[in-house]
Amino acid sequence: MASGVVGEEVRNKQVILKDYVSGFPKESDMQVINGTMKLKLQEGSHGIVVKNLYLSCDPYMRSRMTRVEGPNVFTSYTPGSQPLTGFGVAKVLDSGHPNFKKGDLIWGTNSWEEYSLITELEGLFKIKNTDVPLSYYTGILGMPGLTAYVGFYEVCSPKKGEYVFISAASGAVGQLVGQFAKLMGCYVVGSAGSKEKVDLLRNKFGFDEAFNYKEETDLDGALKRYFPEGIDIYFENVGGKMLDAVLLNMKDHGRISVCGQVSQYNILDQPEGVQNLMCLIYKRIHMKGFVVFDYYNIYPKFLDVMLPYIREGKIMYVEDIAEGLESGPAALVGLYSGRNVGKQVVLIARE
Amino acid sequence: MASGVVGEEVRNKQVILKDYVSGFPKESDMQVINGTMKLKLQEGSHGIVVKNLYLSCDPYMRSRMTRVEGPNVFTSYTPGSQPLTGFGVAKVLDSGHPNFKKGDLIWGTNSWEEYSLITELEGLFKIKNTDVPLSYYTGILGMPGLTAYVGFYEVCSPKKGEYVFISAASGAVGQLVGQFAKLMGCYVVGSAGSKEKVDLLRNKFGFDEAFNYKEETDLDGALKRYFPEGIDIYFENVGGKMLDAVLLNMKDHGRISVCGQVSQYNILDQPEGVQNLMCLIYKRIHMKGFVVFDYYNIYPKFLDVMLPYIREGKIMYVEDIAEGLESGPAALVGLYSGRNVGKQVVLIARE
Repeated sequence: MASGVVGEEVRNKQVILKDYVSGFPKESDMQVINGTMKLKLQEGSHGIVVKNLYLSCDPYMRSRMTRVEGPNVFTSYTPGSQPLTGFGVAKVLDSGHPNFKKGDLIWGTNSWEEYSLITELEGLFKIKNTDVPLSYYTGILGMPGLTAYVGFYEVCSPKKGEYVFISAASGAVGQLVGQFAKLMGCYVVGSAGSKEKVDLLRNKFGFDEAFNYKEETDLDGALKRYFPEGIDIYFENVGGKMLDAVLLNMKDHGRISVCGQVSQYNILDQPEGVQNLMCLIYKRIHMKGFVVFDYYNIYPKFLDVMLPYIREGKIMYVEDIAEGLESGPAALVGLYSGRNVGKQVVLIARE
Repeated sequence: MASGVVGEEVRNKQVILKDYVSGFPKESDMQVINGTMKLKLQEGSHGIVVKNLYLSCDPYMRSRMTRVEGPNVFTSYTPGSQPLTGFGVAKVLDSGHPNFKKGDLIWGTNSWEEYSLITELEGLFKIKNTDVPLSYYTGILGMPGLTAYVGFYEVCSPKKGEYVFISAASGAVGQLVGQFAKLMGCYVVGSAGSKEKVDLLRNKFGFDEAFNYKEETDLDGALKRYFPEGIDIYFENVGGKMLDAVLLNMKDHGRISVCGQVSQYNILDQPEGVQNLMCLIYKRIHMKGFVVFDYYNIYPKFLDVMLPYIREGKIMYVEDIAEGLESGPAALVGLYSGRNVGKQVVLIARE
């Protein structure tokens, strides 16, 4: 890690993956090790040295813990040596690049460690608005926020009065999609995995209805209860049985925005089969997968919409912040058992 | 059947379904019965009396042999009394409607019987061009032709040079989609279920490659062989394991036009699960089901394109014509074992 930097060494704690994971990840699949790091760039370097402040725990990270054959949108982690990578917020300590200077706050791809040397600067955004919590740039104002925004507005073509269903609805993305849909005048129902989360959806995020999918033995029946006339838009975060039940309850010309399938990430070897795809034909359903990276160009527009929403209290946002890099593995693993309530963040250091 | 008509009775053979079908339909699930029919309309009727000439055997008919719960794009057949319905070509014998007159040739929804009284005239088209075989209006110039046309041009957004895969490629729809794709300058591969069909695809319809899916133990491997760079457009006619293998081989931003899933029609109680839907996300795939009825308004435009193609020999077309209404049940059942080669038609009477 220290190549390209000079000066005195400081301790640099890192979270590494011990080996590729199969099934549900455990805290013990990761390890916190003590590295070292020099905080000054070598002469001529075009990279930046940063102090990491917040790390983002995101469901997609599970797929990077598996060895992926062939090309994929995500590269697998390197067990045993390199720290995990993900999204985060950091402060620039030294810069060899004209776009960044010491003291700048940034968000984007970074590593699970206290300090990083970043040489790939694409996909880093400078944080200009600091009247909102910095941690927001791991969520509502970062990748998950943009994901919710493009997944709903660009992929679903929503219209006022439509019936919208969101799975994993209290997560970083789902909570925002539901609020976007309410702001547009849609009828919104979300599913989540605990009473506490269901209460959040109803009482904090303003969903019209919400239910705990773990308490429903018949998902098809549950959806028929909440959507007697059917679903226009499904924002898909979970896959498997839920998707199958949703297909049976879509309206003609319905749209499914495929954002994630978290129920399947830990059973990649043998994913659940989805049986009701014939509904795509009869109901003329439009199903579209998307990856937020394709929409990075609209981030400035997104920020222009979101910042006023946040400042005016039109959009609520709930975070679940774990303190200290050491708490990272447990926080990340908790995503897959649904332990987090709201967006899971790890605080490494206050500014 | 004789309500609304007067005059002398003639024999009217009909094909009826004996009972709802589960699993693969058998010839013995149907029965040819002798009804009677009067060929003159009663005074004041706004319907038409027709002599049926050709019947179309189409895969979707299987789903109408099952009792369908709730609303569906197709209504179930009524076993025991009413003849099957489907698409066909007929000649008007008597008309009470200003749009039709005695002697007109029509195509559209009709019944599996020698003569019909039709009172629902929506979805009937008058045949104006008779320099091509009349049977073509059950296929290349009828519902399957329009299905191929809208499914490829409207749903797939094809571009020159793209890689196109078509399953059930020698069927009424598939053979046309492949030729449309070739005319556009795409690379086209089709799958079918016999050597004879594969030869047709290669030698008659001009596909770049074709393979017999029944001889492939590893569909994923087969697709990798034919599409080392991946598939841009998949025209989906079969579902199940083929769809799963295709998902693994789609290119980023690929499009899947979901036209049919014939491999699943006989196992509706327990369809095969599709496991690789996660590819929709990573590969940003756009998957869209469609029903041809939504596009009937473009039929005149379609005809303007197709008639010259046929006359100039730019599009080839293969029919499998069974003679006589009595051969109807065997012809229809043969669709599901893949016995037909090309579009399956039943000739009831020559004009």
